Amino acid sequence: MIDIKKVLDEKTEYADNVIKQYLPEEKGLQSVIMDAMNYSVMAGGKRLRPILLMEMALCFNGNADDVKPFMAMMEYIHTYSLVHDDLPAMDNDDFRRGKKTTHKQYGEAIGVLAGDALLNYAFETGISAALAFEDKERALKALSVIAKKAGIYGMIGGQVVDVINDGKEKSKEELDYINEYKTAALIQASMMAGAILAGVTDKRLTEIESAGLDIGLAFQIRDDILDVTSTDTELGKPVHSDEKNNKSTYVNLMGIEKAEEEVRRLSEIAIGRLKNIGIENEFIFELIRKLTYRNK
Amino acid sequence: MIDIKKVLDEKTEYADNVIKQYLPEEKGLQSVIMDAMNYSVMAGGKRLRPILLMEMALCFNGNADDVKPFMAMMEYIHTYSLVHDDLPAMDNDDFRRGKKTTHKQYGEAIGVLAGDALLNYAFETGISAALAFEDKERALKALSVIAKKAGIYGMIGGQVVDVINDGKEKSKEELDYINEYKTAALIQASMMAGAILAGVTDKRLTEIESAGLDIGLAFQIRDDILDVTSTDTELGKPVHSDEKNNKSTYVNLMGIEKAEEEVRRLSEIAIGRLKNIGIENEFIFELIRKLTYRNK
Repeated sequence: MIDIKKVLDEKTEYADNVIKQYLPEEKGLQSVIMDAMNYSVMAGGKRLRPILLMEMALCFNGNADDVKPFMAMMEYIHTYSLVHDDLPAMDNDDFRRGKKTTHKQYGEAIGVLAGDALLNYAFETGISAALAFEDKERALKALSVIAKKAGIYGMIGGQVVDVINDGKEKSKEELDYINEYKTAALIQASMMAGAILAGVTDKRLTEIESAGLDIGLAFQIRDDILDVTSTDTELGKPVHSDEKNNKSTYVNLMGIEKAEEEVRRLSEIAIGRLKNIGIENEFIFELIRKLTYRNK
Repeated sequence: MIDIKKVLDEKTEYADNVIKQYLPEEKGLQSVIMDAMNYSVMAGGKRLRPILLMEMALCFNGNADDVKPFMAMMEYIHTYSLVHDDLPAMDNDDFRRGKKTTHKQYGEAIGVLAGDALLNYAFETGISAALAFEDKERALKALSVIAKKAGIYGMIGGQVVDVINDGKEKSKEELDYINEYKTAALIQASMMAGAILAGVTDKRLTEIESAGLDIGLAFQIRDDILDVTSTDTELGKPVHSDEKNNKSTYVNLMGIEKAEEEVRRLSEIAIGRLKNIGIENEFIFELIRKLTYRNK
């Protein structure tokens, strides 16, 4: 058995450095925007998406150095979505990961622009990397999956359904829809992009997409559970926010115990799918278990 | 001599159809976002960027059909920037082109998300097109220029400098900086991308970049002039808004007469640059003149 905590700490530090390496220099009359981007990205986080991308590339004998800019790209997209999600017109959150949200720190106009800048910069980073990538068709396929899963048929689509149903009671099917798009899509994109860059077959890619969905849903249910069971300090953001915002979650739909069961069920299905296509990476399996059993 | 009005009307209609062709279908639980994107894009506009992209491709014997998705991409990026620029946290505008702005029509949350969706969808469209493009390296180079000119070293950079200096008096050098990035960058990107897709040489590309800058600056000075000399009905948006918002413009810096002279000077320099690299497209020359002498 691997020491998952130790290995994960090492991988997170590695991902942190990769993400930092591709961030823009703070220069020019517009340097405040680079500052705001860097602030938002370096505020911390689990770096789950870049780690999953790298690990999936390694599973199919990809080159770790070649996928670095794509790892950074995923984290920039994830970060932009948080920056815009925190805006007053959206969730209106003042704190995230124990630090002021971007618009609280820089004002609302720069909050909007920093999100825009991160999304655009994510594509700048990915497109530059594709130009340098030996197999350009493969790199373009990875970019195409990332773009689709980040957009209206992915993350933004889920965000929209969440926003327009704000405060309304939702069925499990509606919650699944929102979470498939809002949370799972970028996890799927990370896993798929890593595998595509390493030259995975289409048949295996379909299984990876399904595993990513299971992981994403399990991850979101865990998030809902933590919102109820944690303290502010543990979570780095206000707890019971779902309740306060009158949000339908898996927890109030099925109760904590059933929600815990569902997390376990989904994560084991995901692990099974990856094993079925020949993956033997113990770290990924333990990571999935840790992610879905995590306490922050 | 060509009948510029007639030809331009035809080209604008062609560009309109291209832009429409690549817009997303309004389907799924998230269909309101497609609706908001389509509303924003089809609100009208001169379609200058797509037309310039296509014409530059034709100047270098590019294939008009192959560049269509890139034309759409440029207009989606331009539109997203307007949607976010109109938000309450930014310019707080209720009308554009005589119609309600996106956040006024759909609410502020969807306003933010529609802008995000258009930027992401622009890249989705461009990346799909690159995958189908015969010379993938060339397509990636075009995408790379577009991404850079749309980002913190381009349009967003200019937007940021404009926002942080809001209400302050600016020198001509500062105004040039803002307008080079905020307005000229996307015009440069359109012209450059069209030429790159058609296989232009690097030396000629540098001249096209310079011509794009001249055109962009001339275009912006004309915009400032129109804000003073037009009526609301002619312009489709409130005039004298610069004055009301206490914005420094070329007009209050140098007076209308000198500003008019500067427009003429810059547009003739741009035309000269294009002629110098062998371009003989009368339509482009007349378009540049029309754009910079336009009255709306």
